[in-house]
Amino acid sequence: MAIELQILGSNSAAFAHNRHHTSQLLRVQDKYFMIDCGEGTQLQIKKYKIKLSRINHIMISHLHGDHYYGLMGLISTLHLYGRKTDLHIYGPPGLSEIISLQLKCSATRLYYDIKFHEWTPNQPEVIYDDEKLTVTTIPLDHRIHCSGFLFKEKPKKRGINKFVVTKSLSPAQVNKLRNGEDLYDVEGNLLYKNEEATIPPKLPYTYAYCSDTRLIPDLIETLKGADMVYHESTFMDDMKDRARDTYHTTAKQAAQLAKDANIGKLLLGHFSTRYRDLNPMLREAQSIFKESYLAIEGEKFVINT
Amino acid sequence: MAIELQILGSNSAAFAHNRHHTSQLLRVQDKYFMIDCGEGTQLQIKKYKIKLSRINHIMISHLHGDHYYGLMGLISTLHLYGRKTDLHIYGPPGLSEIISLQLKCSATRLYYDIKFHEWTPNQPEVIYDDEKLTVTTIPLDHRIHCSGFLFKEKPKKRGINKFVVTKSLSPAQVNKLRNGEDLYDVEGNLLYKNEEATIPPKLPYTYAYCSDTRLIPDLIETLKGADMVYHESTFMDDMKDRARDTYHTTAKQAAQLAKDANIGKLLLGHFSTRYRDLNPMLREAQSIFKESYLAIEGEKFVINT
Repeated sequence: MAIELQILGSNSAAFAHNRHHTSQLLRVQDKYFMIDCGEGTQLQIKKYKIKLSRINHIMISHLHGDHYYGLMGLISTLHLYGRKTDLHIYGPPGLSEIISLQLKCSATRLYYDIKFHEWTPNQPEVIYDDEKLTVTTIPLDHRIHCSGFLFKEKPKKRGINKFVVTKSLSPAQVNKLRNGEDLYDVEGNLLYKNEEATIPPKLPYTYAYCSDTRLIPDLIETLKGADMVYHESTFMDDMKDRARDTYHTTAKQAAQLAKDANIGKLLLGHFSTRYRDLNPMLREAQSIFKESYLAIEGEKFVINT
Repeated sequence: MAIELQILGSNSAAFAHNRHHTSQLLRVQDKYFMIDCGEGTQLQIKKYKIKLSRINHIMISHLHGDHYYGLMGLISTLHLYGRKTDLHIYGPPGLSEIISLQLKCSATRLYYDIKFHEWTPNQPEVIYDDEKLTVTTIPLDHRIHCSGFLFKEKPKKRGINKFVVTKSLSPAQVNKLRNGEDLYDVEGNLLYKNEEATIPPKLPYTYAYCSDTRLIPDLIETLKGADMVYHESTFMDDMKDRARDTYHTTAKQAAQLAKDANIGKLLLGHFSTRYRDLNPMLREAQSIFKESYLAIEGEKFVINT
C-alpha cells in the first residue's frame, strides 16, 4: 500500500516567507487524511489541485489558531460544493462547540453530516480503525491539550509465490495461504506447504505526526522503527531555552529523537518566522540524523511498502 | 480630508479565479477601518504591504464565513506582533461569543483589549463617532442579520480667505470665522464680514458599504448623493430570480439604485464564482450607470474632498 504525504503549510504562528500555517495531507490509497488545517489551507488545496471530495477525515492536533483556523472555511466550501458524504473530524475538547456555534450563527444546515470524534487529552487512544489502518493519538507536551497522530498500517497478509502456485485455487484457498496456513485438498493431501507457496509480507508502514510539543524523551518508544516521523522544530539549537519556555522543540532535539528511535525519515516543520533561510536548521538536524528533511509546502514524501 | 478605499477581496462564497473573500480597507487620513474580513485577509494585507498596526477598527457585516473567517487569524497575528492598542470590532450578535470561545480554547490572553461593539440588527445605528466622522449601520435584507456601513464625514468648517484676512488673528477669532460668524474687535467694530472673509467648505464625503442583500429600493434615501457606494452584485441580470431567492442583488439592480440615488461612483463586488470574466457584468452596470467599477482585489478608489 503506497502512502504519500503532501505538505500544505509549514510556518508557525504567522504567515511569513511564503510559508503557510500548518496542514498536511496523507494519502493512503484512495483515502485522504488531512492533518491540521491552518488559515488559508483551502488556498493551498486549490494551488496543489487536490480533490476536495477525497478528504473524509480531518485530524486537529490542538486549538492554537495556526493549526485550525482554516477548518471552518473548508467545512463551508465542502458544503457549497454540494458534498453529501460524512466528514469525520477528530479534535480536542472545545472544537465541536466552536464549529457548532459558527454554523448556528450563520444559520447553515450542512448538506452533509459532520461526525465529530473528540479525542481524550493526555492518553493514547485509537481514534480511527479500518481493515488496513489504525490511527492512535500521541499525547504531547504543549501549553494547551495537544496530540500527535500515529498512522499504523495493519500487518499485511503473505503474498502468493506464483512460480510455485500453478494450480487454480478458489478465493478461500488463496486466503488460507495468505493467512499463513498450509493448503490441503478435500482428501487431506498436502497441496502446498505455506513456506514454499508464499512470500513474507512487506512490513507495515508507520507515519507519526508530532505537532507542537516540548521534547518528550519517552516518545522514543512510540516512534521506534517508524518509517517516517514529522516532528515540529520551531527553533534551532541556540534557542533551546526559548523552545522549552514556549513548549516547542529544536531541530537538533528532533533529530536526536529520530536517531534514538531508529526511524526512517524525519520531517521538520512548524518553523519560526525568524528563519527565512531554513538550510542552517536542516544542516543542524542532518549533523545528527542524516535522513532529515524540510517539510515545506508543496513537498511530497512517499512511503512505498 | 482624503479618503482611500482598497479592495482586499471580491469573491463570494469560495475562492476562485484568484479572487479572495470579501474585505476592504478604508483609509481616512491616519485611521484605517477594515470592513469585513474573509479567510486569508491576512495574506492580502501582507501582499499589499498594509501596516497592520494602523488597523484599529474592524466592521463585520454578517456571520457568513466569507465575510469573517479571517478575523480570528488577524486577532492572533496582532497579538503575536505585540500590539498594545485597543482593537475595536463592530459586529452582529454572536460574533463576540465566537471570538471569546476561541480565545478561551487556545488559552490566549491577548496583549491588547478587544472593545466589542455589537450593533443592533434591523435598525440604523451610529456605531462610530469622532470629531470628523460618523459610521452608521445600514440594515440589509439577507438570510441572516446583515448590515452595511455608512461612513459620513461631518460638515466641515469654512475656509479662511487669505487674500481678505490680512490681520493677525487669535485661534479663537479664526474659529469664529470658520464657524460662520462675523468678527468684531473688543470695541464692537466689525473686523471681517464672514461671507467676505471665508470660503465655503468642501462638501463632506460619504462612503456606503452595502454588503450581502436583496435589492432594497428604500436604500435610495440612505444613499442619496453619496460620493461612493459599494454594493454587492453577486449575479448578472439573467440570474435575477436566483439573486432574489438567495438574498442577493444583480449588477443591473445595483446600477439602477446608484442612478436613482444620484451617487458619485458605484463599486461592484461579491462576485459569483460562475463569472470568470467580469467585464460583461461591468458593461451591464455601465449601461445604466456609467460610473460603475469592479471592486477587484488590489484596486484603490480615492475620494479627495
